[in-house]
Amino acid sequence: MPSSPPADLLAELEAMIGGEHVLTGAEAIAPYCEDWRGRRHGIARAVARPASVDEVAKIVDWSRRHRVPLVPQGGNTGLVYGGIPDDSGQAVVVQLGRMNRVRALDTADAVAIVEAGVILQTLQQRAAEAGLFFPVSLAAEGSCQIGGTIATNAGGTAVLRYGNMRDQVLGLEVVLPDGQIWNGLRTLRKDNTGYDLKHLFIGSEGTLGIVTAAALKLHAAPRSRATALASVRDFAAAVRLFQLAREHAADVLSGCECFTEACRALVETHAPHVAQPALRGGVYVLLQLDAASPEIPLDAILEGILAAGFDQDIVEDGVIAQSLAQAEQLWGLRENITEAQKRAGPSFSHDVSTPISAIPDFVERCLAALQALEPGLRPVVFGHIGDGNLHFNILAPAGLDPSRRHILQEQVETALYDLVAAYRGSISAEHGLGEMKRDLIEHYRPSLDSELMRAVKRQFDPSNLMNPGKAVRLL
Amino acid sequence: MPSSPPADLLAELEAMIGGEHVLTGAEAIAPYCEDWRGRRHGIARAVARPASVDEVAKIVDWSRRHRVPLVPQGGNTGLVYGGIPDDSGQAVVVQLGRMNRVRALDTADAVAIVEAGVILQTLQQRAAEAGLFFPVSLAAEGSCQIGGTIATNAGGTAVLRYGNMRDQVLGLEVVLPDGQIWNGLRTLRKDNTGYDLKHLFIGSEGTLGIVTAAALKLHAAPRSRATALASVRDFAAAVRLFQLAREHAADVLSGCECFTEACRALVETHAPHVAQPALRGGVYVLLQLDAASPEIPLDAILEGILAAGFDQDIVEDGVIAQSLAQAEQLWGLRENITEAQKRAGPSFSHDVSTPISAIPDFVERCLAALQALEPGLRPVVFGHIGDGNLHFNILAPAGLDPSRRHILQEQVETALYDLVAAYRGSISAEHGLGEMKRDLIEHYRPSLDSELMRAVKRQFDPSNLMNPGKAVRLL
Repeated sequence: MPSSPPADLLAELEAMIGGEHVLTGAEAIAPYCEDWRGRRHGIARAVARPASVDEVAKIVDWSRRHRVPLVPQGGNTGLVYGGIPDDSGQAVVVQLGRMNRVRALDTADAVAIVEAGVILQTLQQRAAEAGLFFPVSLAAEGSCQIGGTIATNAGGTAVLRYGNMRDQVLGLEVVLPDGQIWNGLRTLRKDNTGYDLKHLFIGSEGTLGIVTAAALKLHAAPRSRATALASVRDFAAAVRLFQLAREHAADVLSGCECFTEACRALVETHAPHVAQPALRGGVYVLLQLDAASPEIPLDAILEGILAAGFDQDIVEDGVIAQSLAQAEQLWGLRENITEAQKRAGPSFSHDVSTPISAIPDFVERCLAALQALEPGLRPVVFGHIGDGNLHFNILAPAGLDPSRRHILQEQVETALYDLVAAYRGSISAEHGLGEMKRDLIEHYRPSLDSELMRAVKRQFDPSNLMNPGKAVRLL
Repeated sequence: MPSSPPADLLAELEAMIGGEHVLTGAEAIAPYCEDWRGRRHGIARAVARPASVDEVAKIVDWSRRHRVPLVPQGGNTGLVYGGIPDDSGQAVVVQLGRMNRVRALDTADAVAIVEAGVILQTLQQRAAEAGLFFPVSLAAEGSCQIGGTIATNAGGTAVLRYGNMRDQVLGLEVVLPDGQIWNGLRTLRKDNTGYDLKHLFIGSEGTLGIVTAAALKLHAAPRSRATALASVRDFAAAVRLFQLAREHAADVLSGCECFTEACRALVETHAPHVAQPALRGGVYVLLQLDAASPEIPLDAILEGILAAGFDQDIVEDGVIAQSLAQAEQLWGLRENITEAQKRAGPSFSHDVSTPISAIPDFVERCLAALQALEPGLRPVVFGHIGDGNLHFNILAPAGLDPSRRHILQEQVETALYDLVAAYRGSISAEHGLGEMKRDLIEHYRPSLDSELMRAVKRQFDPSNLMNPGKAVRLL
């Protein structure tokens, strides 16, 4: 196919959305071409910043006519290189930050209609101002955008009670790879009229179209909260404590997080400003209860869980926050692990899930495998135990020769992911595949799954211009 | 394509699954060829009753080789002719009732793996015996099967809190139209590794493959319950009462149902065994709270809702059940409306949804339109007001000439569905499309939605042998 000279191409793009919204030049586009941790640098022709769904549709139509690959990007907070361009230099990044309107916030129906570029925290705040609650909460919430959280089906700390991003979506507006605008912005709680197309786009990492807006469920605002930190011997006890919490408090259990003593010690060393609790143990479990009804005695329910945990020799020690400030201190420990880990040196990260009951065996076998591989590896294991989702991170051995790092990383990955597979788990519980795990997943996923996904991709995007090379490998 | 003589065809089928499991002969297959209300009679070559996923795969392969359409069928309790054959006489019904094993029930992970032919009530009971809870509950639960509830994304009375069938599914096993078995029976709470294929099959009414088993979420068993019936002036007040309930009791609100005074009177006349409450009003709202934590003061919370309702002039009268027997009496009213309506004579049924806040206006305009059309029409409006889902049924005028019935039914449908469309609602909130609404939906759904669905259907089932003519119209 004949292609226009590059200058004409971009001039056409500029005419469509305004020259000031088409960024070019290495320096101007650099922040959009690398991931936020600075680990992967891609190359793009330009960065386009459309302000409306019609402009996005024009860009997609332009990309189709000129065969220019598009990389949709939100807040660029992803961890798997899903929202940045590859090395080909062919792609244009479509950055959706200017589409940042809350189009509607309906308190009667408890629904918000927001554009892709709205920052997650902004939505949380707008919902709170309206006396409601948007539950998806994650570390990057101050900069990640709704479009990206939908494209990656983001998780976080409230999945246990409210589900992933997928579970919040009532409807979507999507620009399809052929440039048509699909208006699926419905706000219905029930609708059984054919295939539920929105689920195809959620979690598809921009490979089937560009999400430009979403209708999202809002929830009743919690009016009371109770938080506890318990120390337990090991992951077996942590899982049993979660099960106790589910049994005693299913109605109000919002979070059940865990981290090891190694994580706590890492925070103590590398994030000394974080308050430390008095208790010590092998594994810590953070429990959070929330209630919209002030009549619900959260403290009593939480005490009941801990008391049952003591009685059954599950809990070794525990503390219940006596104030919101104390609750935030307990969360501070959990929330500063990633930062402490970063300060402690290079590490290998893994976002895995298994059935919840498999966690103790899984962790034990992983630790043994790592020990056998290289005794200097220092595991930093934490995560959302109530979802069966662990961030199984590992600090590289002190003084590791940089030339050996890549080999060791691969060995660690293989050891861990083989065990994930043995427990029928997932090698990406909440972060997605992006470019990072696109090939790796082929090894762990049944080939029929991959074939079906490729067939869907080819049908929606026969020219492979929508975020090519991400999530789905085309043979 | 050459086709074998019919006798050879069925002999081959019999050899695969056993002669006694291939039913032929008009009388033997009649119950599988008509819907349970006896409104629609189809014709089939035979009814095949496989006992395993391998047998289903063989049947699908056989159907593909011989170009025989298949109609998957569960308990045959559908309301839209989705699970029965058409008039062509070409199809074989695949009845999944022999695949009725609960393959696993894991209390630690709160997951059940069940085959398609397991009856919904059986799953509810098995979960209860294990101290857990399966929340999907609907009128046909004593005979509908899990496979059918997944294929139709069944709803019911607990959607408000727990979601539709879709929301219970962690994984599926599906025989694809090409005869391959897709093993997507995962039990993970979080997994972001590519397109979430299971959502394509859920609600697809057997047109993309045959669901043979599912991994389903179980929930903590409610240990206490509180139920109230309130009378309110009209639907505006009913919606406001629902909103009050959501605000006061979001953590524990399991059901919010409604019905009109006409419904109550119909039950009184045609189901006189059902206990009648003392209160009277224009519309009745049934509220149910459930809690897993016995510490939660459900009665106090329910009283708080009603008290707020009185204060704000929303509630006219109310009664809180003082025992489980009384709660069942209150539910008895709601649950006997369909039966009473059936006894009252011929009627036109509509399963619609709108945004919840639109219900009052929507109902008012519907009633006006019906009055204008034919003053003898008698609306019987009830349903799941908390989901925005009304069963907008209408008793035909007394003494209606049967020859006029079909015309009037069409006029009523057009009047109602045009108003549903005006409020961006759904003409099938929970019953699906089947054969009944397959063409009608084309008028109300954006054509792009239909095009996308047809593309998916063609890709998965290029020979159009999986439940052809249901849910999706191929041009």
